[in-house]
Amino acid sequence: MRILILGGDGYLGWPTAMYLANNNNEVLVIDNYSRRKIAEEKKSLPLFNNINLVGRSNEFHKTTKKKISVKIFDCRNYYKLSKEIKKFQPDAIIHYAEQPSAPYSMAGEREARYTLQNNLEVTFNTIWAVIENCPKCHIVKLGTMGEYGTPNIDIEEGWLNVKHNNRRDKFLFPRQASSLYHTTKILDTDLLWFYVRHYDLKVTDLMQGPVYGLETKETQMSLKLLPNFHYDDIFGTVVNRFLVQAVLDHPLTVYGNGNQKRGYINLIDSLNCVELALKNPPKEGMRILNQFTETFTVNQLAYKIKNSAKNLGINVKIKSLTNPRQEKEKHYYNPKFTGLKKLGLKPTLMTEKVLTNMLNLVTKYKKKINQNIILPRVRWNN
Amino acid sequence: MRILILGGDGYLGWPTAMYLANNNNEVLVIDNYSRRKIAEEKKSLPLFNNINLVGRSNEFHKTTKKKISVKIFDCRNYYKLSKEIKKFQPDAIIHYAEQPSAPYSMAGEREARYTLQNNLEVTFNTIWAVIENCPKCHIVKLGTMGEYGTPNIDIEEGWLNVKHNNRRDKFLFPRQASSLYHTTKILDTDLLWFYVRHYDLKVTDLMQGPVYGLETKETQMSLKLLPNFHYDDIFGTVVNRFLVQAVLDHPLTVYGNGNQKRGYINLIDSLNCVELALKNPPKEGMRILNQFTETFTVNQLAYKIKNSAKNLGINVKIKSLTNPRQEKEKHYYNPKFTGLKKLGLKPTLMTEKVLTNMLNLVTKYKKKINQNIILPRVRWNN
Repeated sequence: MRILILGGDGYLGWPTAMYLANNNNEVLVIDNYSRRKIAEEKKSLPLFNNINLVGRSNEFHKTTKKKISVKIFDCRNYYKLSKEIKKFQPDAIIHYAEQPSAPYSMAGEREARYTLQNNLEVTFNTIWAVIENCPKCHIVKLGTMGEYGTPNIDIEEGWLNVKHNNRRDKFLFPRQASSLYHTTKILDTDLLWFYVRHYDLKVTDLMQGPVYGLETKETQMSLKLLPNFHYDDIFGTVVNRFLVQAVLDHPLTVYGNGNQKRGYINLIDSLNCVELALKNPPKEGMRILNQFTETFTVNQLAYKIKNSAKNLGINVKIKSLTNPRQEKEKHYYNPKFTGLKKLGLKPTLMTEKVLTNMLNLVTKYKKKINQNIILPRVRWNN
Repeated sequence: MRILILGGDGYLGWPTAMYLANNNNEVLVIDNYSRRKIAEEKKSLPLFNNINLVGRSNEFHKTTKKKISVKIFDCRNYYKLSKEIKKFQPDAIIHYAEQPSAPYSMAGEREARYTLQNNLEVTFNTIWAVIENCPKCHIVKLGTMGEYGTPNIDIEEGWLNVKHNNRRDKFLFPRQASSLYHTTKILDTDLLWFYVRHYDLKVTDLMQGPVYGLETKETQMSLKLLPNFHYDDIFGTVVNRFLVQAVLDHPLTVYGNGNQKRGYINLIDSLNCVELALKNPPKEGMRILNQFTETFTVNQLAYKIKNSAKNLGINVKIKSLTNPRQEKEKHYYNPKFTGLKKLGLKPTLMTEKVLTNMLNLVTKYKKKINQNIILPRVRWNN
């Protein structure tokens, strides 16, 4: 397949590019280094340096003799994006090119504006570049479980059958997010669903939970091929924060009472899910798949990492912090996860071995950890 | 009250400004003449010329000795908008400043992009200018009944109580629109609802159906004070199209089978609804009110206008045209309309007298009608 990856320099974009290129797809990646620029600006640098996309692609070629083509530009430039898509004629486009940080999107007017404009315009440009240049192309959009929020009913996969006053209809599952970033993903969904109905686009929306892990077949070929590892308050996930805190023997900082439950997924599974989506495009219209493999509360996650840290001789503490986010700390959470399993996914779970491997990797870079960027600098729980 | 009207030059904006100024509010209007520019570009000029906003405001002052302050700039300019809001310190902002044409939004990539960017950015700027300068200000947002589309269940006022697998929750009523313009209003709702929850904004979202009529107390004071009357395929409503066609004794062109049902409202009621919303702000959060007074199918509307035309000695025919729009022509439609009635609205219905008055007004300008812009030039029903 000819596959175009938008946002190919990211934590997901880069491993996806290598995975697909290594499996004999023709891969073109586009990125504008937006995340790297924000990371510089907010002093949120990753644990270890990642060479740039051109360098990574060269390293990948040296290692595997396989090719990943790279273009560096902003997908908000419709003229350039449309021209590349016309030339490349992709069978599928994987759209990761979004500002992905919830805290960044809540930092102020300027950051909110960038998040809204970037995310909406890249989605809009992707839609129109497909309509105008390759209408049969399959768009694989990275959504997020965060779009659903934490409703008091079971979370279905994208859609909800409603019975009301003895009549029935089927709708997009209600979406209500707890950050502006997550809200822009809701707007993406609205926009895609509109254009799917009116221009017969073929779209898969992958509603992913927080991803963890660095090890895939390709990332293990060379240290230079590792994806980025952010542990700070802007780009870091809760898993990475706990891993770094454990290595420092700093108490794991749980926000609020720690009963916030989410669905998590290993990077290996995330790539498998994307591949399953690519190999099984919807016949028509928009298919929505929930993409996680197991759910934990933040407390459960903290205990898992505390237990794994014992293998390294660290007896780390767990400490509650005033929640900087506005989110429910006690809530029902029962999201469905059947679509990707039906397509064949065999989950790789968050075992002690997986966590211990990650702790060992972080330990290698222990001296590089910047303690000043771990605790929350953005608060939106007034 | 100090009231700021965004989009004060429009079909609704201008009569609203006069109505509120005439009732002793301090009124500031902002507009960038976007609709006038699009009308020029698409050769969609209104039936009669409307002097510009500064001229209108002067004429209003001559007639009533009351003042409407005018600023001409684009509300997408956050710096200017924020500065004006800081200076004026409005008690309420009425936000009409959107590209309002569904066919325009479906004409192509450029028009779709303008609609998306303009509508979202003005809403975003309004939200942030309020957060930063007057957080207690009441935002009255013009939504549209078109956001709900035509679901197979009763349409409630903004919200839906859902029971699913024996659990319950309350959500925004599902929204699914049939044009990009209407979809941008859904995005507006998502955005407002997010910021309402996180910054304690006070918002009223008025879900309005198609408005008709030109006569209010103020518009009747001088021909120069009339709002715009568009009858073309871009900015015209179905009511105005039928009125003009009746005057020309041209068959009334019903799109498709004519069973599309919508909720309509007289301009007088639209102003009353806005005033009721202003006088009864929500204590907190977002209040959503459906704003129409009666529902008709397109066929019923055609027969009403055909009957009224008989008073002018015209026996006009009705003719079906292939529907240029992608919309259901046979559908359930039962929207609720209770909130505004509870607040005290006394509906002015679409009587034969109302329609005959409108036909008489159109007849005055019969020679100015441009027949080339009445039939659909934009099609999105492929």
